[in-house]
Amino acid sequence: MIAQKYLDMLGGTSVIRQLAEWSAARGAQIGYENVFDYSLGNPSVPCPPEFTRAVRDLLDTEEPVALHGYSPTLTIPSVRAAVAEDLNRRFGMDYTLDHIFMTTGAAGALAHALRCVAEPGQDVLTFAPYFPEYKPYVEGAGCRLRVVPPRVEDFQIDFDAFESMLDANTAAVLINTPNNPSGIAYSPETLARLADLLRAASARFGHHIFLISDEPYREIVFDGAAQQHPAVYYADTLTCYSFSKSLSLPGERIGYVAANPRCEMADRIVPMCGQISRGTGHNCPASLIQLAVARCLDKTSDLSVYERNMRLLWDELVGLGFTVVRPGGTFYIFPKALEEDAVAFCRKAQAYDLALVPGDTFGCPGYFRMAYCIDTEKVQRSFAALERFVKEQYRG
Amino acid sequence: MIAQKYLDMLGGTSVIRQLAEWSAARGAQIGYENVFDYSLGNPSVPCPPEFTRAVRDLLDTEEPVALHGYSPTLTIPSVRAAVAEDLNRRFGMDYTLDHIFMTTGAAGALAHALRCVAEPGQDVLTFAPYFPEYKPYVEGAGCRLRVVPPRVEDFQIDFDAFESMLDANTAAVLINTPNNPSGIAYSPETLARLADLLRAASARFGHHIFLISDEPYREIVFDGAAQQHPAVYYADTLTCYSFSKSLSLPGERIGYVAANPRCEMADRIVPMCGQISRGTGHNCPASLIQLAVARCLDKTSDLSVYERNMRLLWDELVGLGFTVVRPGGTFYIFPKALEEDAVAFCRKAQAYDLALVPGDTFGCPGYFRMAYCIDTEKVQRSFAALERFVKEQYRG
Repeated sequence: MIAQKYLDMLGGTSVIRQLAEWSAARGAQIGYENVFDYSLGNPSVPCPPEFTRAVRDLLDTEEPVALHGYSPTLTIPSVRAAVAEDLNRRFGMDYTLDHIFMTTGAAGALAHALRCVAEPGQDVLTFAPYFPEYKPYVEGAGCRLRVVPPRVEDFQIDFDAFESMLDANTAAVLINTPNNPSGIAYSPETLARLADLLRAASARFGHHIFLISDEPYREIVFDGAAQQHPAVYYADTLTCYSFSKSLSLPGERIGYVAANPRCEMADRIVPMCGQISRGTGHNCPASLIQLAVARCLDKTSDLSVYERNMRLLWDELVGLGFTVVRPGGTFYIFPKALEEDAVAFCRKAQAYDLALVPGDTFGCPGYFRMAYCIDTEKVQRSFAALERFVKEQYRG
Repeated sequence: MIAQKYLDMLGGTSVIRQLAEWSAARGAQIGYENVFDYSLGNPSVPCPPEFTRAVRDLLDTEEPVALHGYSPTLTIPSVRAAVAEDLNRRFGMDYTLDHIFMTTGAAGALAHALRCVAEPGQDVLTFAPYFPEYKPYVEGAGCRLRVVPPRVEDFQIDFDAFESMLDANTAAVLINTPNNPSGIAYSPETLARLADLLRAASARFGHHIFLISDEPYREIVFDGAAQQHPAVYYADTLTCYSFSKSLSLPGERIGYVAANPRCEMADRIVPMCGQISRGTGHNCPASLIQLAVARCLDKTSDLSVYERNMRLLWDELVGLGFTVVRPGGTFYIFPKALEEDAVAFCRKAQAYDLALVPGDTFGCPGYFRMAYCIDTEKVQRSFAALERFVKEQYRG
């Protein structure tokens, strides 16, 4: 018989998807090049040639039976070892293959990490603004997502609010830095203070509160800032990674969970992931893709377009009088809307062929997200529309 | 904090994996070519060249941003349409893309199908002997797996036992034909009677009892038999497929759920799969692999080795006096052991460098499985060992 739970979920509509559909429909009328579609976080630059070369080379040189054969349950050892070594080299960690479990992107990684360290009925805390898929991810693990209100002046952490929400039912804390949608990267000070607070709370409540660090934008940082790896600051950290953004491979569904070698039961996390996989039907990412990314760990797509677009947009938005925090990375910017109701603000923007996503979707009403993973030329062309929109609607 | 549930699962060991490890260790001593390893169901023939060509061609001709871009939530429409058309052509069905959801192999397909049609707390019935991963798959969906005892004379269905186990809490019935481990394909008569019985039980209990048909061995049938598609017989059928065996791609994790267009809420099943995916972190199989298999739907690996091996083994086992049902497909055969305790029987076989899997693993004690997806030459060389084993242990 049809399961009511998932039937009921069909009612839900994604504002982002609706906007993307509106952009496509409007594009069919006036030409998509004339729609300033800032709705979707899809990489706009190709994967590095090394990835394509790696796939070709694997097809040319490996025996098909071995190449396309079953991954071991815990995913391919040589790939796990290569990921561990890459993280160690870059962040001074001491991962081994025993701490790495390859997954179908960050979604797969989060599904495993959550089930490893949170029991059904427990709470997972995250910070607004947050990626809206965290809700189904957390609820899919049988847990409850509780959202700490945003610190809008800089989108770092409101530690007072956070501390007041931590309690004995808190199993894990989920962060995303650099952040979708704010574009903000947590500062070393924020990460250090978060770690202190989690250590104290773990001691107070008598169990290890895990940090789940979702970092698919780790490689996209601006203004010469250093890339951050929150596991450096806190022992009980599970890192969830995706190559979707760094290698522009979102459709190939490839990422990993990395268990900090100093976390509680560090040697059990990966075997537990193997067990979790059986119940969810995850059962390893594609072998060919695992093997190919392992050959490109020190490569990225040409990510410079995102910083170029950020700078242009930043200048434009500031010039137009928007209140906006300068992004430290990602390909998002999250200004304050020019009226209290960001949904109304974004609806009005559509009349100017601008697709902007209201912050309500990210647990942060009154703000809006622009995903600037689009051609720089289009960013520049969008300014006239943006200026007309602001002038006619808010300065008229 | 560490989740106890998955920690507890770490204790469980797979008999099949233990045997495979023993084979590898023994192979290190005497040469793997001298270990008659019938433990693992891994395809032994390469993928068809058309698959490799399809991947290369996609890399050569498609824009990387589009090729490796996000799949739509419900997976790639052109791929879904191609699968629908292929099934319609071969089995006289009327699927459209709206009934097809691409998954990470049969494991992903079963995870979705089970959640679509069984609520936590409900029962799923299957038939012994059965693939042991069905238990974590079903329990992962929060349901209970109940196993109908085997009909050992031919490994078709014991309908009296089945009927007595159907009750108001039965949400779905899970079949696997051709079957791992018996190698038996359900006859048209079995499928027709199963359908009649499910229709009557659905009417009696006031809800649609779904048939989940796991058919990764559909293309491997012997003695000129027709391939069966159980959905032809029963409207409320969700078909779970994997290309692992037909295209020898187990590591690439590619398959699908096909919802019979005549099933309850047929137009909702695929959108429900999309919602289920969010919670489990499935979120589509790799794009490159989806697109490549769509170009090979009418191809298979050279599967003839499996029938050749079956015939040789069949003659040998019958000649040695084994009670054995002739496989109708797959690459398994499931003879009766020569003593009541098949575990003891298989342990004794190891002294002759034979790796045989006791039927206890498949809910059918007293029998054993041989996976003959190995070189024909090795099958033939194994006969001397088999003969010595039987003679010395049981005819001495």
